[in-house]
Amino acid sequence: MPYRAPVSDYEFMLRHVVGFDDVAGTDRFAEASEDMVSAILSEAGRLCEEVMAPLQRNGDLHPARLENGVVRTSPGFAEGWKAIADGGWIGISAPQDFGGMGLPVTLLTAVNEMMSGACLSLELAPLMSMGQIEALEHHASDELKQLYLPKLISGEWAGTMNLTEPQAGSDVGALSTKAEPNGDGTYAISGQKIYISWGDNDFTGNVCHLVLARLPDGVPGTKGISLFVVPKYLPDDAGNPGKANSLKVVSLEHKMGLHGSPTCVMQYDGATGWLVGEPHGGMKAMFTMMNNARLGVGGQGVGVAEGAYQHALAYAQERKQGRPAEGSSGSIADHADVRRMLMTMKADVFAARSILLACAVAIDMQNATGQADWAARAALLTPIAKVCGTETGMEVADTGMQVHGGMGFIEETGAAQYYRDVRVTAIYEGTNGIQAMDLVGRKMMDGGEAAAALIEEIQSQAEQARAKLPDLAEAVWQASETLRETTEWLAGQKDMNDRFAGAVPYLHAFGRVLGGHYHLAAALADPGGARECLARYYIRRLLPEHTGLLAQAQIGAEGLFGLSLEELAV
Amino acid sequence: MPYRAPVSDYEFMLRHVVGFDDVAGTDRFAEASEDMVSAILSEAGRLCEEVMAPLQRNGDLHPARLENGVVRTSPGFAEGWKAIADGGWIGISAPQDFGGMGLPVTLLTAVNEMMSGACLSLELAPLMSMGQIEALEHHASDELKQLYLPKLISGEWAGTMNLTEPQAGSDVGALSTKAEPNGDGTYAISGQKIYISWGDNDFTGNVCHLVLARLPDGVPGTKGISLFVVPKYLPDDAGNPGKANSLKVVSLEHKMGLHGSPTCVMQYDGATGWLVGEPHGGMKAMFTMMNNARLGVGGQGVGVAEGAYQHALAYAQERKQGRPAEGSSGSIADHADVRRMLMTMKADVFAARSILLACAVAIDMQNATGQADWAARAALLTPIAKVCGTETGMEVADTGMQVHGGMGFIEETGAAQYYRDVRVTAIYEGTNGIQAMDLVGRKMMDGGEAAAALIEEIQSQAEQARAKLPDLAEAVWQASETLRETTEWLAGQKDMNDRFAGAVPYLHAFGRVLGGHYHLAAALADPGGARECLARYYIRRLLPEHTGLLAQAQIGAEGLFGLSLEELAV
Repeated sequence: MPYRAPVSDYEFMLRHVVGFDDVAGTDRFAEASEDMVSAILSEAGRLCEEVMAPLQRNGDLHPARLENGVVRTSPGFAEGWKAIADGGWIGISAPQDFGGMGLPVTLLTAVNEMMSGACLSLELAPLMSMGQIEALEHHASDELKQLYLPKLISGEWAGTMNLTEPQAGSDVGALSTKAEPNGDGTYAISGQKIYISWGDNDFTGNVCHLVLARLPDGVPGTKGISLFVVPKYLPDDAGNPGKANSLKVVSLEHKMGLHGSPTCVMQYDGATGWLVGEPHGGMKAMFTMMNNARLGVGGQGVGVAEGAYQHALAYAQERKQGRPAEGSSGSIADHADVRRMLMTMKADVFAARSILLACAVAIDMQNATGQADWAARAALLTPIAKVCGTETGMEVADTGMQVHGGMGFIEETGAAQYYRDVRVTAIYEGTNGIQAMDLVGRKMMDGGEAAAALIEEIQSQAEQARAKLPDLAEAVWQASETLRETTEWLAGQKDMNDRFAGAVPYLHAFGRVLGGHYHLAAALADPGGARECLARYYIRRLLPEHTGLLAQAQIGAEGLFGLSLEELAV
Repeated sequence: MPYRAPVSDYEFMLRHVVGFDDVAGTDRFAEASEDMVSAILSEAGRLCEEVMAPLQRNGDLHPARLENGVVRTSPGFAEGWKAIADGGWIGISAPQDFGGMGLPVTLLTAVNEMMSGACLSLELAPLMSMGQIEALEHHASDELKQLYLPKLISGEWAGTMNLTEPQAGSDVGALSTKAEPNGDGTYAISGQKIYISWGDNDFTGNVCHLVLARLPDGVPGTKGISLFVVPKYLPDDAGNPGKANSLKVVSLEHKMGLHGSPTCVMQYDGATGWLVGEPHGGMKAMFTMMNNARLGVGGQGVGVAEGAYQHALAYAQERKQGRPAEGSSGSIADHADVRRMLMTMKADVFAARSILLACAVAIDMQNATGQADWAARAALLTPIAKVCGTETGMEVADTGMQVHGGMGFIEETGAAQYYRDVRVTAIYEGTNGIQAMDLVGRKMMDGGEAAAALIEEIQSQAEQARAKLPDLAEAVWQASETLRETTEWLAGQKDMNDRFAGAVPYLHAFGRVLGGHYHLAAALADPGGARECLARYYIRRLLPEHTGLLAQAQIGAEGLFGLSLEELAV
């Protein structure tokens, strides 16, 4: 059951749902015409279908392994990386001055989503490079840019992110890796980093690590952290990989899924590194990379959801079971409960993809116009896109397994791999709980203004839709009104625990309402058609979930700590 | 982090929540006094903690394997089985005439739940035997009973269920395994069966297969199916295992989890079998076994939920991260979102366990009194107990992984094993979708009478609770009222697709309302205490989910088939 890139879905959504015309209308992205966008998506889609999808099972069956300190990647992954690199896909949104295509993040997001649906464990490698490229572009010295960016963009070298340490996970400020000045402008980096995705490979000439570490005069906490680029091989005078740096892969983690992606424990023993950005300014630079990565991880979830949905649909259409009703295909796809699962999967994929692309559009508009309201919109949507994308990935993979019945639990089917692989996306790049706390904390430091502006847009579209689709419009309007009330309530809470207690249900409800909003846009563009049918399914059946979630979000921390730890254990 | 059997929770729930006094008040179960129940639960709990829990990782790390046609089980499983058998736990509810304890199914259910929390893959072995014992007890000839029951009850032999064939999964009536009379009262069984849990082992003297097959004059469909007992070794005149029967394990499935349980493809080549029950009466006999097994699988889900919860709680209490607030333990268990996860897990485990035990109490009352209303109650609660138990298992294992953060995705932690193992419980013994269709189909052939009687009880308790706990009582009453309306709407639908389309959300909502009902009972028994605190958490935060679910359940099939298969694929 091969992966099929959902190119036409993107084309429809860019035009009718998420307002990509705004992006194409800016000077900066003037070349992103409809034809150009279609060509890019089709070309990337072909790569995903023909090169990456056939590698999906390889990664699972033949995991990356560590041999004598060297990572050996899964069969075909080296060729896969080369095809990604040769197509220019690593640099799709990278600056043209350094060999990138300079295209909108919206296209990058679509391409990353497709690559994730085809082969998640391999897609994670270019995603890591993309984050590094963006961090270096915005924070590194010209010299570092000249040396690193062309090679990262071309895929000759690969990049990684090194944040986590055993005692410093969600609390990155607790890290203890040290950076000592060598006196020649470089630094000696020492410490251990864990959970380093693609910490090494056997297909690029160099692996460049962006490492968070503390300078001797760095204060405790996040304010004392600096960022360094630490290459596996020290570049010689010509910029080619030279002497090996003092760093190594200690071990690979034995994970539940994503076996094609080597998750490394990295040891730095006085490794030579170069400062990126200001001393003690590491968190700022890291946030550039993390925001990129969060959107990317949301896209991973949506991509896996698309892959798992296609996989389940193909199975359901082939599987005969029970007495077929008259006029039925005889397959289980015509059973009401199976059809419910398929429709739910499809409607949820659309919703999550819309949120993802709307976030990307906001980032592009922020980059193209510099307007603060677009920046606020992008900041607001990033945690929602990350969580809704990854939760949709997990739920659709779960439902897809259920569609398979007994076969779903058998590894050969491939349904289980989606389920195992995607699970990590709710954990890495900031757990989904951390994202939700970001939404009701940092992202509401404006008193809920950015959220209110978005809800205003939702209500405005709903008002306009009343004439054509009165029932759907009313449902979306009502849902957004409840969301508005809850948002105001949350923004008014001074004790942060009263916000945090309901952060996750609030974020989920926000996602549901946004899903209704974008489905309504699709219905308006396709009255009486398949888009309206799917929108009606979502808005009538799935959107009502927001009521229970928002009820939960408005309770605050009351009673949350009512049981002692001892009572919890009884 | 060792498993701790929740004995005190059972004691409280039996007394205050699910009305076990009714059971103990019958003549049949008069010996099930409080002291006796406590002794049984404590003894079983000790087995789970000391013998079974240490085997949990063994099953995953050293899966059962097939060597030259013989199944080799995971290290320690043979000793584990022996301890279970020697304790008499296989025959806890089996007839005393054949060596069983003759105790209520409620106790069996609690013991099975504990064993599942300790080591699911091993627990599945006695569960299969228990189902076979019950089927033989009710349907086999005296001769077969005399021969098989004592050995199955003592654990000298083990039992399996053989229903599924490649083309006959949920549609068991499509099976093609044949049974030809041998002329001597025995039958020659030929065919292939798949997904046979514990189809073989290396620790019992014999393995007895209950096999569904079709006699030469059997009509197509379920009405032409008969049940046979087909032993691995043919009993000799003394009843000891003799000549090998013509059957074999062809292969073991490569599953996502539950690796300690060998899932076999079985081949029968004219194997000798004995008819159980009437010719063509196989489905009736099988339903005895399946109802037992459905409740058992619900218990597997609750057991895993308990294990995963304890595991996550222990991790959360140990893991330090972030700046602790004043008076905090400094562990992540004091972070609001982590505490939300822990409270949700605990509240959901209580709700699912209540439903499970309430179903078991109804079965015991049915068995002890023969009253039709108890039979109807048991029949109604069985699919709800199966689905709510298994969904709670999956959700709590998922949340437990999330509590672990990055460590959750690493296999060594053990959190991932719960997540992988429990996933099959939503699939086997009738997928959860099939259960939901059973609830709105067969179980509503009474026009919704059994459901209405249960809802009446919920409302009656809520009315009584108004004086002491007005807010909680009102919330439960309102929820049950919406459930009542939806039940009436569903029971009134003539087109079954209008019921089936909302079957799964309806069942989930029913479970939520029942959870509220039992939590309210607990709160009434512990006013101002920890039970009330947990009930308040559940009723205020989790119960509201029913509104979205019931809205979905009342839409029917309208629009469900609005997209063609081609449109679904675009």
